Amino acid sequence: MALAIMCSGGDAPGMNPAIKKFVDYTYKKGQDAYLIYDGLDGLIDNKIKKAAHKDVSGIVHFGGTIIRSSRSKRFYEYEYRKQAYENLKALNIKGLVVLGGDGTFRAMQKLSSEFDINFVGIPSTIDNDIYGTEYCLGVDTSLNVIRDALDKIRDTASSFNRAFLVEVMGRECGYLAIVSAIVSGAEICIIPEIEFQKDALERRLIQEIKEGRNYILAIISEGAKKTPEIHSWIEEKFGMETRVSILGHIQRGGSPSVYDRMMAFDFTIRAIDYLLEHNDSNKVVVYNSGKFDFMEIEEVVSKRYELPKHLIDAINYLD
Amino acid sequence: MALAIMCSGGDAPGMNPAIKKFVDYTYKKGQDAYLIYDGLDGLIDNKIKKAAHKDVSGIVHFGGTIIRSSRSKRFYEYEYRKQAYENLKALNIKGLVVLGGDGTFRAMQKLSSEFDINFVGIPSTIDNDIYGTEYCLGVDTSLNVIRDALDKIRDTASSFNRAFLVEVMGRECGYLAIVSAIVSGAEICIIPEIEFQKDALERRLIQEIKEGRNYILAIISEGAKKTPEIHSWIEEKFGMETRVSILGHIQRGGSPSVYDRMMAFDFTIRAIDYLLEHNDSNKVVVYNSGKFDFMEIEEVVSKRYELPKHLIDAINYLD
Amino acid sequence: MALAIMCSGGDAPGMNPAIKKFVDYTYKKGQDAYLIYDGLDGLIDNKIKKAAHKDVSGIVHFGGTIIRSSRSKRFYEYEYRKQAYENLKALNIKGLVVLGGDGTFRAMQKLSSEFDINFVGIPSTIDNDIYGTEYCLGVDTSLNVIRDALDKIRDTASSFNRAFLVEVMGRECGYLAIVSAIVSGAEICIIPEIEFQKDALERRLIQEIKEGRNYILAIISEGAKKTPEIHSWIEEKFGMETRVSILGHIQRGGSPSVYDRMMAFDFTIRAIDYLLEHNDSNKVVVYNSGKFDFMEIEEVVSKRYELPKHLIDAINYLD
Amino acid sequence: MALAIMCSGGDAPGMNPAIKKFVDYTYKKGQDAYLIYDGLDGLIDNKIKKAAHKDVSGIVHFGGTIIRSSRSKRFYEYEYRKQAYENLKALNIKGLVVLGGDGTFRAMQKLSSEFDINFVGIPSTIDNDIYGTEYCLGVDTSLNVIRDALDKIRDTASSFNRAFLVEVMGRECGYLAIVSAIVSGAEICIIPEIEFQKDALERRLIQEIKEGRNYILAIISEGAKKTPEIHSWIEEKFGMETRVSILGHIQRGGSPSVYDRMMAFDFTIRAIDYLLEHNDSNKVVVYNSGKFDFMEIEEVVSKRYELPKHLIDAINYLD
Repeated sequence: MALAIMCSGGDAPGMNPAIKKFVDYTYKKGQDAYLIYDGLDGLIDNKIKKAAHKDVSGIVHFGGTIIRSSRSKRFYEYEYRKQAYENLKALNIKGLVVLGGDGTFRAMQKLSSEFDINFVGIPSTIDNDIYGTEYCLGVDTSLNVIRDALDKIRDTASSFNRAFLVEVMGRECGYLAIVSAIVSGAEICIIPEIEFQKDALERRLIQEIKEGRNYILAIISEGAKKTPEIHSWIEEKFGMETRVSILGHIQRGGSPSVYDRMMAFDFTIRAIDYLLEHNDSNKVVVYNSGKFDFMEIEEVVSKRYELPKHLIDAINYLD
Repeated sequence: MALAIMCSGGDAPGMNPAIKKFVDYTYKKGQDAYLIYDGLDGLIDNKIKKAAHKDVSGIVHFGGTIIRSSRSKRFYEYEYRKQAYENLKALNIKGLVVLGGDGTFRAMQKLSSEFDINFVGIPSTIDNDIYGTEYCLGVDTSLNVIRDALDKIRDTASSFNRAFLVEVMGRECGYLAIVSAIVSGAEICIIPEIEFQKDALERRLIQEIKEGRNYILAIISEGAKKTPEIHSWIEEKFGMETRVSILGHIQRGGSPSVYDRMMAFDFTIRAIDYLLEHNDSNKVVVYNSGKFDFMEIEEVVSKRYELPKHLIDAINYLD
Repeated sequence: MALAIMCSGGDAPGMNPAIKKFVDYTYKKGQDAYLIYDGLDGLIDNKIKKAAHKDVSGIVHFGGTIIRSSRSKRFYEYEYRKQAYENLKALNIKGLVVLGGDGTFRAMQKLSSEFDINFVGIPSTIDNDIYGTEYCLGVDTSLNVIRDALDKIRDTASSFNRAFLVEVMGRECGYLAIVSAIVSGAEICIIPEIEFQKDALERRLIQEIKEGRNYILAIISEGAKKTPEIHSWIEEKFGMETRVSILGHIQRGGSPSVYDRMMAFDFTIRAIDYLLEHNDSNKVVVYNSGKFDFMEIEEVVSKRYELPKHLIDAINYLD
Repeated sequence: MALAIMCSGGDAPGMNPAIKKFVDYTYKKGQDAYLIYDGLDGLIDNKIKKAAHKDVSGIVHFGGTIIRSSRSKRFYEYEYRKQAYENLKALNIKGLVVLGGDGTFRAMQKLSSEFDINFVGIPSTIDNDIYGTEYCLGVDTSLNVIRDALDKIRDTASSFNRAFLVEVMGRECGYLAIVSAIVSGAEICIIPEIEFQKDALERRLIQEIKEGRNYILAIISEGAKKTPEIHSWIEEKFGMETRVSILGHIQRGGSPSVYDRMMAFDFTIRAIDYLLEHNDSNKVVVYNSGKFDFMEIEEVVSKRYELPKHLIDAINYLD
């Protein structure tokens, strides 16, 4: 029997350690290991290669993914999914480990509902916005990249009467913003999920400025789409020259942290074990309260991740 | 009522975020917050200062501890413990948050058994060797410092027919060594807890060298006291020029990671809440399976931390 | 006799090592050392403090400036300059070491033309845009911060059919952009000083995309004000999803590099020696072809820094 | 005509940028570019490969060298040197760019004295110990790796009454030690070149400890072979618990700094231009006072590098 691994959607730090472990552990279990290059598009175009140990030697400390990733419009069409299945069948690949997010999992669900193919998804996105799991692969590395940027801004912040806006990733989910704000002690944190309490914050900051505050650090989730508005608001209301950083894709890069490497190994081992022991896999490995479990893909993709209440409260404490 | 915070024993990254949160959260709860400088010696010598918010402003990203730490021989004598207690009583300090390890907790247990003083300990040591908790403050930051060093050695390793020995911290516990070996894919990992399987490893490595391996990475826990022995063994048996790095105290330094900052905040809030709600505190905050809890100090100090079986197994897999 | 040090304008990494050396070396020379806090505003408001060794202990590895900086509108008025002079005279301060850029040097020139005060300027700005010196303090650290960000983007770049625009600092000078483009192998570099050759570049990149190029990295100097225009252009012409990073003030932060620390020490020693040996100082320390020298402030502020031809050529090579 | 590039001896950060530039610039000049793998041994064994642009794509930010390096005993024998020459001749390779140190340059001198082959050496060693050039490729990156380690030790140093010994690389040359000591403000710096003034330093430090000093940082060059002796001396004389770090090969790793990338490009362009314009090359590119020049290999290898006097003086200032 053979198993394959694929990345799809945005890349996340930790994908390379997962790929490394996939190859080593699959062979250890006596099965053949295949790499699918270029995500769903590569699956359609048969960019599938039997893995050698040396393909994955020395990749653990690289960001990104050595097998690359993609988004595929063709995969919405039945004929291409059929072609993808035929490619897998020809190589006797019975199970897939898939690193990606919601969109990816939906695509896999479709494929496995139509054809005889099993898969286990590993939630992999720095946005941490997947229902059913407290943790998605890549988040810890991204948070530390943001932390490093905020530490650098702190160096320069207090030298001047100034405000700093830092826009971090998160299309629909404020996880990165909220945790970054907590660990850096930001004065303002704006996320897509909750209404920004402008008036209350204005009163508090004006009071603090009277008492000596000489800078403001604001973290804004890109999904909130409020960076220009907050920029103007701070300059008008508090009279502070305001500087903007948009961190962008540096948040996806960098050598995976120890936590993401360990999580990558643990997620992958569980995904492989599940595929080898079940013939009905249509699951996502989830991680909650320090334990791994499996959740039906239907449940994962049909519900919406909600930020834990204690994180929301921590932000309200900021306000 | 007043609370105080103290660091004792070796320092650990994350102490400063804990100190910051201690001051902010204690005042938020309507109590007075005190800082005890220079550990147990400072407690004896009355280096206790009422904290202002500005004392802890901008410290979250510093390694070490701004209130310093110490080991104290005097604290073994009753008269000095009495003096320590009198100092606290004079300031109306009813509870202590104490950051440290086993030795520190034993000292506090003695103090609180003799005098009317409550405390809650926060396990803080990069060795991760405290019974009853899966995690001690500082470990994640240390692991990432080691990872960064190993990534650098990887850069140069494969250029030559060479072996690299890296000695990491851990006096009685191989936690840092074992996790570092796993995430860096080291070929050899030697820890105090388990016998090193020299013969088996020799056979495996000789086979791998025949098949093309051109370098060896070995992680050695300082507590194993085997660095010179392994050094000679590799040079003799495998004929590889061998280079040694002893990382030493760089493993205690560096800006605390996001994980350690969040853990510092969470540990500290729980410690303060417990002190405010109980009058019999003689506890340590522990963290297991994603949840915080409290354990009697007697239990913590009377038993020995054991490495989780899955980590030991991972190393056997290496062998 | 006494000397003082002041930072003015934007901060630059390396200011703290310069301040440290200023205090140590001035006392070593048998003179008194003063710190002027908050730049020109602090000079007016008499925020001048005799330095102790412990004021500058352990600051060498901090970004920013512990004596802070400012821009001052009041300094344009004679009465405030007079007040500034009176403050210095009262403390018997005969000479100033001033860390800053063009604007700062103009302000000092005005002051020293009106009053009996000597100064030596140390060119300190990450923009590297000061006439007469090849190097300004802080540039090496900033370049390495940008490099680290670009390395992270490289990790993720080749996984997708994508373009990355990275906006770096430089209001009127493309130095940071041009060097960053060279050392990261960027495909596009846009700076204020030279016209962007859109058509030629378009032809070249379309050819390269045909031959397999699957990503584009573009570095844009903030002073070029072209980020939105290039963003649209790439998406339209090359059909690549395009992601923007605006690095902002992280470029001013971080622990000063070894090069900036050494330059800070060297600049400062020369500035102090000059002040002690001359009574007509109105100079800037400049660094060219590996040698330090002094240039009249009139010359420095009256001419415009031009990018070295070999750097411009390197960018044309990119085009 | 064709040119080839080779690394020999210890690796140095910056070799990969040099290799990248070698390939790009040689083809730009209309010549063929070859890569020699595994150093002198690879030259003997004909591990020579015509370079494609994609062989060197995306390598600029990697430490080490992708074409690897070696030391070769066989190269001391004429028959192997002849074989090396025959390999080059067969591929029409007229000139070599060689990255290495003294030993490497001697080997090349021998080869080019016997056969019709030209070469230009690029001084590449983190030890910075080559006569005739102020700078060797890799030094800036190594210094910043050491700086980062020392910054981490600083975090923890002042928390305790402790001494820290850090052993840095440099077999015969104290350059890394001396510059590291200067930029980190170490109290003790021990190098192979100058006698350590134990008594004078002892008096000074005892005085400082009386006045409040509570830690000591000592930098020791590995070539001085004094780490155990200084360890005992500090513990005995100053009664300070003393911790040792031996940084080892982490000093050779890490992403090349901006300075090393620029130097790699500049060294390589000059080496290629020289080879293309002369038919008698037996030179080393040297860098002094901000300018590149060429020196006869005889001169480079027959004299000994001496530390600049101003660096020695800076250490005496420490004593």
